[in-house]
Amino acid sequence: MLQNDLLLRTLRGEATERVPVWMMRQAGRYLPEYMVIKNKYGFFERCQTPELAAEITLQPVDIIGVDAAILFSDILVVPQAMGLEVELIESKGPNLPNPIQTKADLARIHVPNVEEQLGYVFEAIKLVKKELNNRVPLIGFAGAPWTLLCYMVEGKGSKTFDKAKAFCYTQPELAHTVLQMVTDTTIAYLKAQVKAGADVVQIFDSWGGLLSPHDFETYSLQYIRQIVAALKDEVLTIVFAKGAWHSLNAMAATGAAGLGIDWCIKPSVARELAGNQISLQGNFDPAKLLAPIPIIQQEVTTMLNAFGKGRYVANLGHGILPNVPVAHAKAFVDTVKQHVFNV
Amino acid sequence: MLQNDLLLRTLRGEATERVPVWMMRQAGRYLPEYMVIKNKYGFFERCQTPELAAEITLQPVDIIGVDAAILFSDILVVPQAMGLEVELIESKGPNLPNPIQTKADLARIHVPNVEEQLGYVFEAIKLVKKELNNRVPLIGFAGAPWTLLCYMVEGKGSKTFDKAKAFCYTQPELAHTVLQMVTDTTIAYLKAQVKAGADVVQIFDSWGGLLSPHDFETYSLQYIRQIVAALKDEVLTIVFAKGAWHSLNAMAATGAAGLGIDWCIKPSVARELAGNQISLQGNFDPAKLLAPIPIIQQEVTTMLNAFGKGRYVANLGHGILPNVPVAHAKAFVDTVKQHVFNV
Repeated sequence: MLQNDLLLRTLRGEATERVPVWMMRQAGRYLPEYMVIKNKYGFFERCQTPELAAEITLQPVDIIGVDAAILFSDILVVPQAMGLEVELIESKGPNLPNPIQTKADLARIHVPNVEEQLGYVFEAIKLVKKELNNRVPLIGFAGAPWTLLCYMVEGKGSKTFDKAKAFCYTQPELAHTVLQMVTDTTIAYLKAQVKAGADVVQIFDSWGGLLSPHDFETYSLQYIRQIVAALKDEVLTIVFAKGAWHSLNAMAATGAAGLGIDWCIKPSVARELAGNQISLQGNFDPAKLLAPIPIIQQEVTTMLNAFGKGRYVANLGHGILPNVPVAHAKAFVDTVKQHVFNV
Repeated sequence: MLQNDLLLRTLRGEATERVPVWMMRQAGRYLPEYMVIKNKYGFFERCQTPELAAEITLQPVDIIGVDAAILFSDILVVPQAMGLEVELIESKGPNLPNPIQTKADLARIHVPNVEEQLGYVFEAIKLVKKELNNRVPLIGFAGAPWTLLCYMVEGKGSKTFDKAKAFCYTQPELAHTVLQMVTDTTIAYLKAQVKAGADVVQIFDSWGGLLSPHDFETYSLQYIRQIVAALKDEVLTIVFAKGAWHSLNAMAATGAAGLGIDWCIKPSVARELAGNQISLQGNFDPAKLLAPIPIIQQEVTTMLNAFGKGRYVANLGHGILPNVPVAHAKAFVDTVKQHVFNV
C-alpha cells in the first residue's frame, strides 16, 4: 500500500486532501546531486545501469519532496532497441547518424523483444520500487510514436522537424509502417514497465504541436489511441502532447486518466476543451522558475486557483530547465503542498 | 491606382473576385534567382543596398505571380538602428554579440532617428514602388517588440528563449523600458515605411506563442496594440503572432485589418475566436509544400473551402522553406488563383 497515493487518486477522479505535484525532468541537471553522477558516467550509461538510473530517479523524491517519482531514462531507448544507432552528444542533444529515409531503411529496424533489449529499464524500475518502499508512486514513460519518428527520420533535434514532416507527406505509407512498428514496440515496452512495477505511465508527444489538427490525428493521435487502449485496463495513463491544445477533447476520449498541458493555454480553456471526466496536469511556464521565489509563490497560487480543486496534478508545462536554482524548484513544490483552496 | 488591389480590398472587408495570395519569405532561398544575389553579397549588404533589396522584393512577383510584394529586409534592422551590433551568420542565424542583460546596457541603446538610421529601407521601398508600377501592393513590416526583445536579450535564435523570458520575469521594469523603446522606434519606422509607399504593414511576432496568455498580454500584445493604434488611420495592418491562438480575439480588437494564423489551428476555430470583423491570413503548413504537387493542390483546396470566401488572404502559416521546389510554390499560388468556391 502506497503511503502517498495522491497522484493515483487524483488520476482516478477521487477526492484528495490536496493537489499532488511533480515536475517533468525532475531528475535532472538542476540538481547538484545529479551533476555528480552526470560528470562520472555517459548518458546511456546512466540510463542503462539500473543502480544509477534508480539513484537518479530517487533524488527529487528525497531532495525536493515530490509526490511521485518518474523513472530516469530517455524516450530514445526505444528507437535504439529497434535497431537504430542513437548517440547523445552533451550540450548538443541526440544524434542518430543513420536516420530512416527510404523504404530500404526498414530493413534496419524491427519490433524488438523488449524484455531482451530493454531489460535494464525494468531492472531499474524494480530497484526504484524497492528503494521507494511505497513512499510515493512511480511513473514510467515512453515517447509517442510521432515524436520518436521525428528523431528517427530527422536524425537530431530541430525547431520544426521539417524533414520528418516531409517524410510523412511524401511517403505516407512508409511513415505509417514505421509509426505502427514504434507503436507495437511501445505497447510491449510500457506493459513490461507496468509488470516491473510502474504505477502510472506517461506518453510524451513533445512534437505533437508541430502538426496541424488534421495531421496530428493522422500521424500521432491514432497511434497514441492504440497505446492507451492497450494499457488502460492495466495502468493509469497520462498523455502529454505539447502544443496540441486543439485535440484535448479527442485525447480525453482515448481513455487516458490524465492529460498534460503546457502554459500556453488558460486552465479554464483547457478544462472546457478536455471536459470534466479527465485529470489535467500542468502547466507552469518552466522559465518562470527563474523568477524570484515570491513571484513563483504568487504565480503558483494563481495557477492552483485557476485549475481548482480535484482532477488536477500540479506540474510544469514542460521539463524543468537546468539553470533553475534548487530552492526555486522546492518553492514550486512547497507552494502546491501548502495551498489551501478557499472554495 | 493599383491594377491588382485584391489584398487591400480583402483587408478592408470588401468583396473580391477571388482570394488574394502571397507567401511569407516569398523573396527567399527557394528561388534560384535569389541565390544568385545571395551568393554575391552579404545579408545586411542585401538589406542595406536599395537596388538589391528592391530586385529581391520583385522576384516572386515576376516569377511566382503573387498578389503582393513584401519588402526584402529583416526584423533585426531595428535593434541594429537602436545601437546593438547584429551579425547574420549564414546557416546559423542571427547573432548579437553584446545582448542586453542589465540596466547598465540601456546606455547602449536609444530610440533612433529612423530617417537617418534606416533610410536605406525607405529608399528600397521607393524603388520597389517605382518598379512595381502599380501592379500589386507592397507590404512593409517590422518585428513585434517582444520578438525583437527575444533577440536583443538572448543574443541569438533559440527554441524557447528562456534567457529572454527570465530577463522579463526577473527584471520586469527593465524589460518594459526596452519594449517601450522598441515600440517607439517601430511606430516611427513603420510610419516612414508608409510615407515611402508601403500599402500594408505586417507586424511579425514570431515568438509570441512562447508566452502564456497572461504574459503575452503583458510583454507583447500591449505593445502591438500601441503600434496598431498609431498606424491604423494611415495604413492597413496585419498582426501575425505565431502560436498565440489564445489571443486572437484580443488581437482582433486592436484595430488591425488582418490576423495571420499558423497551421496548428482549424480555420473554423480561428474564425470563431477572431470574430467576423477582421480578415484572416494563412495557414498552410510550410512543410507541406514539400509534398507532391497533387497533394498540395488538394490540401490548398481544402484550406480555401475551410476559410470560405471573403475576409481571407491565402498564405503559409510561417515562412517558405529554402528547400521547396519553385514549381511547388507556384502550385500553391496557382491553386488559390484558380479556385472556384461552390457557394
